[in-house]
Amino acid sequence: MMKALVLEATDTFPVLRDVPVPTLGPGEALVRLEAAALNRRDEWIRRGLYPGIVHPIILGSDGCGVVESVADVGVEWVGRRVIICPGIGWGDDEAHQDDGYEVLGLPRNGTFAEYVVVPVENVCPAPEHLSPTQAAALPLAGLTAWRALMTRGAFRSGERVFISGVGGGVACIAAKIALAAGADLVVSSSAAHKIETAMSWGARGGVDYTQPHWRKAARALAPNGYDIIIDSAGGEGFGDLARLLSPGGRLVFFGGTRGAWPALLPQHLFFRQISILGSTMGSPREFAALLDHVSEHRIEPHLDGVFALADGASAFARLEASQHFGKIVLAVGKG
Amino acid sequence: MMKALVLEATDTFPVLRDVPVPTLGPGEALVRLEAAALNRRDEWIRRGLYPGIVHPIILGSDGCGVVESVADVGVEWVGRRVIICPGIGWGDDEAHQDDGYEVLGLPRNGTFAEYVVVPVENVCPAPEHLSPTQAAALPLAGLTAWRALMTRGAFRSGERVFISGVGGGVACIAAKIALAAGADLVVSSSAAHKIETAMSWGARGGVDYTQPHWRKAARALAPNGYDIIIDSAGGEGFGDLARLLSPGGRLVFFGGTRGAWPALLPQHLFFRQISILGSTMGSPREFAALLDHVSEHRIEPHLDGVFALADGASAFARLEASQHFGKIVLAVGKG
Repeated sequence: MMKALVLEATDTFPVLRDVPVPTLGPGEALVRLEAAALNRRDEWIRRGLYPGIVHPIILGSDGCGVVESVADVGVEWVGRRVIICPGIGWGDDEAHQDDGYEVLGLPRNGTFAEYVVVPVENVCPAPEHLSPTQAAALPLAGLTAWRALMTRGAFRSGERVFISGVGGGVACIAAKIALAAGADLVVSSSAAHKIETAMSWGARGGVDYTQPHWRKAARALAPNGYDIIIDSAGGEGFGDLARLLSPGGRLVFFGGTRGAWPALLPQHLFFRQISILGSTMGSPREFAALLDHVSEHRIEPHLDGVFALADGASAFARLEASQHFGKIVLAVGKG
Repeated sequence: MMKALVLEATDTFPVLRDVPVPTLGPGEALVRLEAAALNRRDEWIRRGLYPGIVHPIILGSDGCGVVESVADVGVEWVGRRVIICPGIGWGDDEAHQDDGYEVLGLPRNGTFAEYVVVPVENVCPAPEHLSPTQAAALPLAGLTAWRALMTRGAFRSGERVFISGVGGGVACIAAKIALAAGADLVVSSSAAHKIETAMSWGARGGVDYTQPHWRKAARALAPNGYDIIIDSAGGEGFGDLARLLSPGGRLVFFGGTRGAWPALLPQHLFFRQISILGSTMGSPREFAALLDHVSEHRIEPHLDGVFALADGASAFARLEASQHFGKIVLAVGKG
């Protein structure tokens, strides 16, 4: 048996239960988890705002641990510390995921447990400069950030990048990835301390999006506009973001926590050759590129805090409050 | 002196006047026009709905004619039939035009005249299979279509393409370019005869966008969605177009005659890795690629009708009525 956080019904918090250790199928690896991390997706599922929810389910898409056993594909991974690529079945087309694509943690049981079983191709060596709690904070947010910035946004060193809502897990790691790759970075947040922290990483400036003149402030920081803007808020502010783009600028979005975009006038966009680019998750090739970049530049995910697995409800409450800054991590471990 | 259609005030029709033949500046060519063609841009300028309007002005971005003389760059062009690339000063960046970019016909005098002066780099040999009236119909619409479909849309042979409002000049030539390049094409129009004509070119089907269930009909023609949609209408229907895209689909827009897009939910877009791509005009490299494609496949622009230069007001009235199908051409000639 193992300890696991089990979500038993919508709008409850997951509870710690003793459940059987999962068994290996062909081509799978059993990972003894040391740490896991929460994502907004887990919160949506907990609240019932996600398609295809089943109960009971062990949530969790992010994990770092040690491979305990591997089915029928040799023993090279056994005993190694790995992080888990959270996407399963992307397919061969880099442009989009296959129909059967799924994210670890629904419908397949995820990482908020002492053990998880994943396809062996989803385990990758953990970057050596990261602790297990740091490494667990990387996969889903890092992969999302990498695809949004590098693949969809086609970032080139030296470009002006604007990242909205820098408190979020994806925005945080996107900021660090962009800075390491040579971005001229400006961020937004409602919290001065988050902007200050991003500036300590190397961001050139930041604006408080709750202020009425935030767009003017953002414009003043880049009078010729931003080459790339990364957004997961949507809502009315999306129209302002579109106007902050430079000619040829790319607005990449991977979420919409503030709802629908406002009505946009195409005339404001096509003359400037604007691209508005949806992005979600990323392919295994993108995950490998992310790990290379993180290792090369010794990037450390920004952690909001670490909770014990048994205290999972508190971790979820922290996520729900939306005051966090960076990743909320669960320390799993055996003892 | 020469005959020219001169626009003397907003909301009037241009009138035939005798004006001086323009004089050559350094690096310029004098072209004796045989034909010119109208574009929606000319109509916007005539009605005062365009930035930077000056009066009097000779409109016209499209022209085919014979080079009469060339300043200080040799005589190789003299006597050759050419078509004119309508964009001046694009610059070196394929992603977007430079700040100083302009389109022939405002502020610089255009092609609705017996002679026009353009930078010598803007003249290109006219495709040999085209008559002067056909060739004059190609440049602006063809360039816009080429960039939208090939560069921005990154079309690959065999992809499912949907072109809305196939009556328009850009939509018409985009359909022919796409078919020659191996597209599986569906079109929309409010006119059955335009759909039938597009199907005679090779389109697989068409839908009447004035019918309440047009989206269902378009979906039925491509149950897995369209890889590329080309639109210049915008308006409420833009949201429907976005839902017709396949995963990884690209919605390229180069206009917005029906106004603002509706409020769009980002969640409907990012999960499917949708791209919404603004496009306008195209670079000289794209113009050269267009001419190669048109010559290789012997593509003929679809002409709505040919008016005499002296009857320019009728040509503009035809454009204003928006019932045309393909390009409205002016036969210029000397006699």
